Amino acid sequence: MGARAVLLLSCADQKGLVATVAEFVYRNGGNIVSADQHTDAEQGVFLQRVEWELEGFGLGRAETAERFRTIAERFGMRWDLRFTDHVARVAILVSKLGHCLYDLLWRQKAGEFTADVALVASNHPDLREVAEGFGTRYEHVPVTPATRDAGEERLLALFERERVELVVLARYMQVLGPRLLERFEHRIINIHHSFLPAFVGARSYHQAYARGVKAIGATAHYVTEDLDQGPIIEQDVARVSHRDTVDDFLRKGRDLEKVVLARAVDLHLRHGVLVYGNKTVVFD
Amino acid sequence: MGARAVLLLSCADQKGLVATVAEFVYRNGGNIVSADQHTDAEQGVFLQRVEWELEGFGLGRAETAERFRTIAERFGMRWDLRFTDHVARVAILVSKLGHCLYDLLWRQKAGEFTADVALVASNHPDLREVAEGFGTRYEHVPVTPATRDAGEERLLALFERERVELVVLARYMQVLGPRLLERFEHRIINIHHSFLPAFVGARSYHQAYARGVKAIGATAHYVTEDLDQGPIIEQDVARVSHRDTVDDFLRKGRDLEKVVLARAVDLHLRHGVLVYGNKTVVFD
Amino acid sequence: MGARAVLLLSCADQKGLVATVAEFVYRNGGNIVSADQHTDAEQGVFLQRVEWELEGFGLGRAETAERFRTIAERFGMRWDLRFTDHVARVAILVSKLGHCLYDLLWRQKAGEFTADVALVASNHPDLREVAEGFGTRYEHVPVTPATRDAGEERLLALFERERVELVVLARYMQVLGPRLLERFEHRIINIHHSFLPAFVGARSYHQAYARGVKAIGATAHYVTEDLDQGPIIEQDVARVSHRDTVDDFLRKGRDLEKVVLARAVDLHLRHGVLVYGNKTVVFD
Amino acid sequence: MGARAVLLLSCADQKGLVATVAEFVYRNGGNIVSADQHTDAEQGVFLQRVEWELEGFGLGRAETAERFRTIAERFGMRWDLRFTDHVARVAILVSKLGHCLYDLLWRQKAGEFTADVALVASNHPDLREVAEGFGTRYEHVPVTPATRDAGEERLLALFERERVELVVLARYMQVLGPRLLERFEHRIINIHHSFLPAFVGARSYHQAYARGVKAIGATAHYVTEDLDQGPIIEQDVARVSHRDTVDDFLRKGRDLEKVVLARAVDLHLRHGVLVYGNKTVVFD
Repeated sequence: MGARAVLLLSCADQKGLVATVAEFVYRNGGNIVSADQHTDAEQGVFLQRVEWELEGFGLGRAETAERFRTIAERFGMRWDLRFTDHVARVAILVSKLGHCLYDLLWRQKAGEFTADVALVASNHPDLREVAEGFGTRYEHVPVTPATRDAGEERLLALFERERVELVVLARYMQVLGPRLLERFEHRIINIHHSFLPAFVGARSYHQAYARGVKAIGATAHYVTEDLDQGPIIEQDVARVSHRDTVDDFLRKGRDLEKVVLARAVDLHLRHGVLVYGNKTVVFD
Repeated sequence: MGARAVLLLSCADQKGLVATVAEFVYRNGGNIVSADQHTDAEQGVFLQRVEWELEGFGLGRAETAERFRTIAERFGMRWDLRFTDHVARVAILVSKLGHCLYDLLWRQKAGEFTADVALVASNHPDLREVAEGFGTRYEHVPVTPATRDAGEERLLALFERERVELVVLARYMQVLGPRLLERFEHRIINIHHSFLPAFVGARSYHQAYARGVKAIGATAHYVTEDLDQGPIIEQDVARVSHRDTVDDFLRKGRDLEKVVLARAVDLHLRHGVLVYGNKTVVFD
Repeated sequence: MGARAVLLLSCADQKGLVATVAEFVYRNGGNIVSADQHTDAEQGVFLQRVEWELEGFGLGRAETAERFRTIAERFGMRWDLRFTDHVARVAILVSKLGHCLYDLLWRQKAGEFTADVALVASNHPDLREVAEGFGTRYEHVPVTPATRDAGEERLLALFERERVELVVLARYMQVLGPRLLERFEHRIINIHHSFLPAFVGARSYHQAYARGVKAIGATAHYVTEDLDQGPIIEQDVARVSHRDTVDDFLRKGRDLEKVVLARAVDLHLRHGVLVYGNKTVVFD
Repeated sequence: MGARAVLLLSCADQKGLVATVAEFVYRNGGNIVSADQHTDAEQGVFLQRVEWELEGFGLGRAETAERFRTIAERFGMRWDLRFTDHVARVAILVSKLGHCLYDLLWRQKAGEFTADVALVASNHPDLREVAEGFGTRYEHVPVTPATRDAGEERLLALFERERVELVVLARYMQVLGPRLLERFEHRIINIHHSFLPAFVGARSYHQAYARGVKAIGATAHYVTEDLDQGPIIEQDVARVSHRDTVDDFLRKGRDLEKVVLARAVDLHLRHGVLVYGNKTVVFD
């Protein structure tokens, strides 16, 4: 299957949006292979994802963007043009827990993601062997109260140099500063070890165990300034019973976290997620 | 929310389909509120569901169909034009088990379906009280080897007179004849008490129990000449364990059957299901 | 299958508990058909459920309790002796939403519960027809700030007269007072329309919609003085997407609530739930 | 937590079983931490799993077995005595697909299993690097029609020399011969890529795709002479839609297979699975 263009757009709902976008593709010789659209009637917001084959399409990539800009401005669209053969550059941040890192690196190696893992960075040295075992660069960037700002600077510089487009927090136990958040708005995905908004903050499984829940959850979301409050991409749960100890919660939770985070990363890399307000539209 | 038109269509994949349909709606003043599209690359089939507001739309209902016909013929489309304020007339066939019947009648009464239950028909007299308790007509149509053809005739006549558009087999334990199947192609929904294609035929839960499965399932599908082989609309499963007896399978299964059948009926009534070959596209 | 005795007990963990209980049953000629046991290592609590056939058992029902009392006192047990042929008397409290009421009454009628619904009581007159359609007594007990105490008195009197053993809050929108809570400790089951502890309080689905969750939940729990904080019996979730409106959340939620509440009631009626601290042990 | 003894037993149902076993443990000073019991009323079979602390228990390990033998003979029990500090020796068989192998080796390294992976054997050389990356011995044992018997001999010899107790077929694409099956009865676990008994044999996902299912499954079972017919240990499903291609089925299926196989292996290693007839009792 050849490369395709993907257009993600959102704007105030108005007549003619679907027709205009489809007409743009058609007039230039493109064959639409997928078109999803959602209207949030409450907020009056229109969101769309259109994908078409580049084979036979009459415009070059830069030209496509240039021409579409006129349409976008007419309708007041926020928009993004991407291409399915683009190999995204991803940075993974971890602390000491390695299960999500392992899982992501294995998937990347197995060809599940159209992405390169540019580097793994951590505030601890522990997972170097895991990253390097997959041939991936590992950077130890210590973060202490005293070095927080310098650490962030170093991460930003690393991401810049490695042309990172997506940052994945694979159980990274540090709060990110405003510069990173601003620079990578809606491009930092975190996995939280609970079914948000239940059990925010640390030691979620311990909280869940103390409460006597009958299922535990995991939530992948874009990171914003408000901790554990960003737009949710994916969630799932697993049943637990009185027989499960906190250790069992942690063990079952690892499986949940791996799968939920991987799905969110996959959806993002397939250009399937649009953010509006504090919500996501997920075109899967 | 005002009434909307829904266009369901399928044809060989080709350029300009999305643009042409969207243009048709837009040119006549319609605002598209939902547009879903799927291309089966393997079979080269294009399928689409487009929904637009009638308020402000310049064509009457009959006129819309008439005008669209030209487009449909140009592209060789199979198509169907429906309106969300149309109250579908539904017949429910049952035998002796009442759980699905109860559930459907309750949902109808609670306003979950845009439908009227025109009648309940059964080869047994047992569930008359249930139907009539909801104010629904109940017809006892006995089916024996000797009366099979006459029974079918009577059902067909009843459906004709009541202008039935959808037939729901809510645990109806009889095979339908070819005339009914032909007359209501892709408009007869059955609930099968297994995760098809496992455990076809009768006594599925007994088969499942004997096999020692760890989950049971239910499948809603359109009925075709090949028993239990029609296009699947919806499936789901529930966990079981060695502690569950066949009676527990039956009890858990009833909950599954109710929910799976109701979802399938709901999807059909919302004009969300397209059939192609032996498969369905479900736009939910 | 003949009637069986069920013994539920809990105490500080110590040696000889399993042996002593099993020996008690065996010595008196009983055949154990099910024995489940759980030790909470953290809290040092032992909990057990033992079920044996009455056929061939040498002690009468009252005698069984009397003899077991000696054992229970020796080990400092909290315990409860029940019999599977006992038909529990249940009261259902509702407000205006009828889906859970319908579901429970249907299950009772279908023989899913070993219980009689002694009465349905409500602070509104709306659901009288539903209850009486199933032949069940309906009491309208208005609750206003001025009449709260009198209302509680009336409920208590009704429950007393009807020998109610279990109270089910089937979307009852009132807080219960301390006298009812005390009188029916661990015998009042509520269904909350969220995956607790997320979205406590009112309008849970609206909260969930605003947060942009990807799944909604329901939680059945015993009612305690702390609103939405009682011991959880059962929880489940259903997936939602950006396509779902608040109305869809409510609709999908109704299905969840029905099933989760029915499972909790069933587990309770089968003598499968033990409470310790703010947690439950569910022997299913 | 100290080491514990686990007794797994089954026999014809009769009075006094629970009491006798509990008494055996108690009389020798053991504290039972977990006791699960199941009676299959239909077949009249009693099955039990009892776990007690070794600390304070008056008998040595060999002595325990010896003494229990008398009881077992009296009741005609099949039984097995295990100890939770025993580190089982596991062999993993693979062909070319590495996802389950990776997952199992990672879990073993992460300490999720009380087991050593003694060796990985394969009819292909492809996954050597994966195994050796985890420090695990890799044996390439080619299997062709001509070398089948010699191959089996070599596997048997390897397993013998490595004192293998459990064989895991982690997407091993070969049928095992009778000598292996006999030698490792109920100790060979296979992962099948479907919700058995649907889609037996090869290319399950392709079959499922052709049938238009709405969910795919995976099944872990003990291997017997009848292909895909052995006692089921664990099953699970994942939803798919018309948007999923066969490749998506394969990708989602990998996640299912990993989790379902790992759960089954874990249950086996925790001494939680009893086989009777063609069914399992899973004490989790």
